[in-house]
Amino acid sequence: MERHFAEELKTLKQKLFQMGLLVEGAIEKSFEALSERSEDRVKSVFEDEETINSLEIEIDEKGHTLFALVQPMAGDLRLLTMILKINTDLERMGDHAVNIAEKSQYLFGQPPLKLDIPMADMARATQKMVRDALDCFMNENVELARKVLQSDDKIDDYNDRIYQDMAALMEKEPSSVHRALCYVMISRNLERIADLANNIAEDTIYLKQGKEVRHHFETT
Amino acid sequence: MERHFAEELKTLKQKLFQMGLLVEGAIEKSFEALSERSEDRVKSVFEDEETINSLEIEIDEKGHTLFALVQPMAGDLRLLTMILKINTDLERMGDHAVNIAEKSQYLFGQPPLKLDIPMADMARATQKMVRDALDCFMNENVELARKVLQSDDKIDDYNDRIYQDMAALMEKEPSSVHRALCYVMISRNLERIADLANNIAEDTIYLKQGKEVRHHFETT
Repeated sequence: MERHFAEELKTLKQKLFQMGLLVEGAIEKSFEALSERSEDRVKSVFEDEETINSLEIEIDEKGHTLFALVQPMAGDLRLLTMILKINTDLERMGDHAVNIAEKSQYLFGQPPLKLDIPMADMARATQKMVRDALDCFMNENVELARKVLQSDDKIDDYNDRIYQDMAALMEKEPSSVHRALCYVMISRNLERIADLANNIAEDTIYLKQGKEVRHHFETT
Repeated sequence: MERHFAEELKTLKQKLFQMGLLVEGAIEKSFEALSERSEDRVKSVFEDEETINSLEIEIDEKGHTLFALVQPMAGDLRLLTMILKINTDLERMGDHAVNIAEKSQYLFGQPPLKLDIPMADMARATQKMVRDALDCFMNENVELARKVLQSDDKIDDYNDRIYQDMAALMEKEPSSVHRALCYVMISRNLERIADLANNIAEDTIYLKQGKEVRHHFETT
């Protein structure tokens, strides 16, 4: 029975990874929607979200079945609860990708703004955080998890800079307000995705070391 | 052993409720900080956040100990996983209250804007959603849970209206940009709090009925 449980858990973890890759892809596409002004990319993000939502429900239900059917040992239980938690985090990232795609869709119906903001860098760095968070969880790699936590400061800096730059632009050019607001919101969504990637990294450290790093992680 | 587990679970649920009340209070205070331009209220939200973070860790660790120590039955296990999930949701609401308090602090260092937006109504409705979500979970009240889910549309409407009104104001009065942006962000934080309350209501329905309501809840 225990061996059967271990295999089921491994399969579930693998499915979570697949979902994670899909979410990572949706984030990438949502940004491509913006940079390429592509309606196809927007549609593709919306389609991905449907799949992500279905996967979330499937993983959640399977996870609860595993709880109910077996009486596993402490380590496996912790892994199973993490899978359920990360499942929710990934699904929320998917929602943020949809928000970005929606704002992008509005933006490419409008004349483009000439901007000098690090949005592409921020999107790439966020996507990398998501990928690294997934990898560190899959391989229980604490070192990589710590790197993810360190990256979060950079994302916050990007977010602050974009907020300030867009506020300055709106003050200077009132006709840019609606479009600049979209960039503020896109940046905010990327920052939330990075926070969720952070949670996965924290969970990985907790899983591996049994130590609580939330709310008092030191990057030094 | 099983009876002991049931008691421990009851105690944990009670502690989650206490945490929930604290979070609800922090949300209320964060809005009072804004409406009363009160530095004391801001400080109080920051202090509450410290306590909320400690409670989150305490509940999380206690929950994981319960997993490891006992081999409980299906229903209790589902309740325990819900407690851990709601624990995370409540902690995030606390973070949003802190964001609101920070934006309020910026705002009352600035000349007040004359506004006709339903921010107070939105804050009150959001706070009520949080309180109802807590109550429906504590009493496993599916009817109340459905009411919470229905309220979410109203919050989204408030959020849309505030976004549009603030965009219009920024276009008309460029000097208002920084302040109006704060209101957009406060409204966004309230909307996120309402989403998290929604999650708790969905979890309650799932807990009670074993039915999945996420992503396809019908309010009719």
